[in-house]
Amino acid sequence: MREINLGLIGFGTVGQGMVRILLNNLDLIGAKANIRFRLKAIADLDIETDRGIPLSDVRLTSDAKELIYDPEIDILVELIGGLEPARTYILEAIGQKKNIITANKALLAVHGKEIFEAAAQNGVRVAFEASVAGAIPIVRALRDGLVGDRISAVYGIINGTANYMLSEMTERDCAFQEALRMAQDKGYAEADPCLDVEGIDSAHKLVLLILLAFGRQVSLDQIYVEGISGISPLDINFAKELGYRVKLLAIAKGDERVLEARVHPTMVPASSLLATVGGVYNAIFVRGQATGSSMFYGRGAGMMPTGAAVVADLVEVALDLGSGRRKMLVPEFSNLSINDMAQTVTPYYLRFSAADRPGVLSKISGILGDHDISIAKVIQHGRQVGGAVPLVMMTHEARESNMLAALELIDLLPVVWGKTVFIRVEENFE
Amino acid sequence: MREINLGLIGFGTVGQGMVRILLNNLDLIGAKANIRFRLKAIADLDIETDRGIPLSDVRLTSDAKELIYDPEIDILVELIGGLEPARTYILEAIGQKKNIITANKALLAVHGKEIFEAAAQNGVRVAFEASVAGAIPIVRALRDGLVGDRISAVYGIINGTANYMLSEMTERDCAFQEALRMAQDKGYAEADPCLDVEGIDSAHKLVLLILLAFGRQVSLDQIYVEGISGISPLDINFAKELGYRVKLLAIAKGDERVLEARVHPTMVPASSLLATVGGVYNAIFVRGQATGSSMFYGRGAGMMPTGAAVVADLVEVALDLGSGRRKMLVPEFSNLSINDMAQTVTPYYLRFSAADRPGVLSKISGILGDHDISIAKVIQHGRQVGGAVPLVMMTHEARESNMLAALELIDLLPVVWGKTVFIRVEENFE
Repeated sequence: MREINLGLIGFGTVGQGMVRILLNNLDLIGAKANIRFRLKAIADLDIETDRGIPLSDVRLTSDAKELIYDPEIDILVELIGGLEPARTYILEAIGQKKNIITANKALLAVHGKEIFEAAAQNGVRVAFEASVAGAIPIVRALRDGLVGDRISAVYGIINGTANYMLSEMTERDCAFQEALRMAQDKGYAEADPCLDVEGIDSAHKLVLLILLAFGRQVSLDQIYVEGISGISPLDINFAKELGYRVKLLAIAKGDERVLEARVHPTMVPASSLLATVGGVYNAIFVRGQATGSSMFYGRGAGMMPTGAAVVADLVEVALDLGSGRRKMLVPEFSNLSINDMAQTVTPYYLRFSAADRPGVLSKISGILGDHDISIAKVIQHGRQVGGAVPLVMMTHEARESNMLAALELIDLLPVVWGKTVFIRVEENFE
Repeated sequence: MREINLGLIGFGTVGQGMVRILLNNLDLIGAKANIRFRLKAIADLDIETDRGIPLSDVRLTSDAKELIYDPEIDILVELIGGLEPARTYILEAIGQKKNIITANKALLAVHGKEIFEAAAQNGVRVAFEASVAGAIPIVRALRDGLVGDRISAVYGIINGTANYMLSEMTERDCAFQEALRMAQDKGYAEADPCLDVEGIDSAHKLVLLILLAFGRQVSLDQIYVEGISGISPLDINFAKELGYRVKLLAIAKGDERVLEARVHPTMVPASSLLATVGGVYNAIFVRGQATGSSMFYGRGAGMMPTGAAVVADLVEVALDLGSGRRKMLVPEFSNLSINDMAQTVTPYYLRFSAADRPGVLSKISGILGDHDISIAKVIQHGRQVGGAVPLVMMTHEARESNMLAALELIDLLPVVWGKTVFIRVEENFE
């Protein structure tokens, strides 16, 4: 059996998961892949805390460089997260011809181009299954399973915290702040939940999904990002009444020329598979020209699920090590231009806070009509919210620029008493 | 760009799908994998029919041996289906050191051991992504994505025809025969639908799922197989009323010692993801120790989806060709013993055709109690069906041997007027 020496930088949650799985399943992995992994060293700022894992043969150090410059280490696993010093460590290790495994989506979203190019120049791999959707092997699905197909759309529920919060708001009719507190109590949300609830973490992962599905390295600022902090129970309940659920979706849609890349709260039909993805689970719905609709569902985070994804990369990279195998180094294979968000076309959910007076509907619908926006459905229950009456509309497909222009005018109407809420809709999950 | 020569045996539906995708996406595959596939020859008994595919450079022959003994062909794709002559062709081609790609689940279920051993001896690959669940990359998910994990259960909706029929019976309240006619009209079911509706096709695929997930080569006769032809709209409606859906599931559950392997109609909670898998779609729900619950969903059959799975295997095998890469040749990595079906423990749905008389419930529940079977729920609506009244029960977990013994006694009761219907239940899809 071949022995492969590993180094691990970052002995936090995911690092512990990886080590536990390696220790528990050493024989299983040996039987499947004829590989024996030897964890040679772990670097972490905290080498004092007892993680409850027996590590008799493993060198613990607070100096990552010891691992980077250890010639015996074949594969280096980076699990410290964040941009620096992770970027520097990885680039130095690549320079030392080490294969890299990382769960660092933020780093790859920002510095991916630099890192992948360095890896190509040095003939090593950078594997990142654990960076997107935890245990779901979505990197392999897009890269290998769908390699022969042209992908036309990817819709991801790829932030478990946001999905947990929206699920709780839907099931328990609670407000955003309460859902956030619950997520924090359960350990799903950080003290600063901004990355999760503002959609930034989803955008990081969308950069990687786009690279895999569309062969295009986009930068973060090319992705439209809107979080869920503006979603109220009122809108979730109207969505339910209309037969929808509100999900934070990371969306990429491409044709031959143009790619849409956006993260925002989205209404999806309650009968669609994505609507049934509850709690902290993740799912990625993929549409391909030949394969049609596929969906990949599972745990998007956590010690053991993400640790298992790291181990999958370990095996893959180890099997390639020392072989002359032609690698697919996540090449860019397209040159799609990125759609301007203002040009996006979707149906919209609109909630106006309108005075309960005759003529209001006519004024609002008149402005919408002037902007080429036609109304599919109207709900008005007469429920009073702060003196105003919520007037809810579903539109047919409309252009974002038209919608923004119309809402600007509508919000200036004296009979409209607050900023109009709008949520984009995606319908087609056949 | 490397050129790889292909031969295709079997130019039917899937073969045409594969060729169309190769022709349409030649540049895409080249850009992703730096490979140019050249389809050198196609063998089919019918080389006259125009399939509407331009094949100027491709030799058409009715003699498969021409391809098998063509030294220029690197990879041979077998898409004729059935046991013979497919087995002979594949073994001869392996003897000629050709890598094999096949969608032939029946062949691999029956002769897999022989074929995989021949491949190992000759140092070639037998790739079979297209054999299970069409476009869903479940072979890769189990073999690669979950390689580090111990799988504890696999539940597959892996026959699209049966799932379509059960979906129609559920949504339109129609009988088995009508659903079958609809499936035949739509081209989903063969003139002889036995393989699909009797669960045999699902069992073929389950053999492969078990090999991948549990590392155990089982034979077909080790799998308990029961089809859906006994399912009536009455039971589907009672299932609905109880909060369940009826699905044809292929189930494998393993612990450290024993493996359950069975295909049968199964009641699953209506709120579970598997229950929402409708029409001809397939899905495989996987439970792993580290990864928890995952599900893989997509098109399980059809020209283009299955063709895309063949192309994925082409790329994988081509990338390995000529490299010294250590392959995972679908090794058997466990020696689990196969559970006797009589020892299986599940909750049961029972429908008795009972006389509408006092004391019937007491007699039936007495016999159940004598066999260690406790009742969770009873429904009796007094609807008359052929003079008898359907009496429906959900039991707690019970052993199959006990259940069969109890039902044998119950069906002998003078107040029970027909054979009792039972459907096994699976509850735990968290």
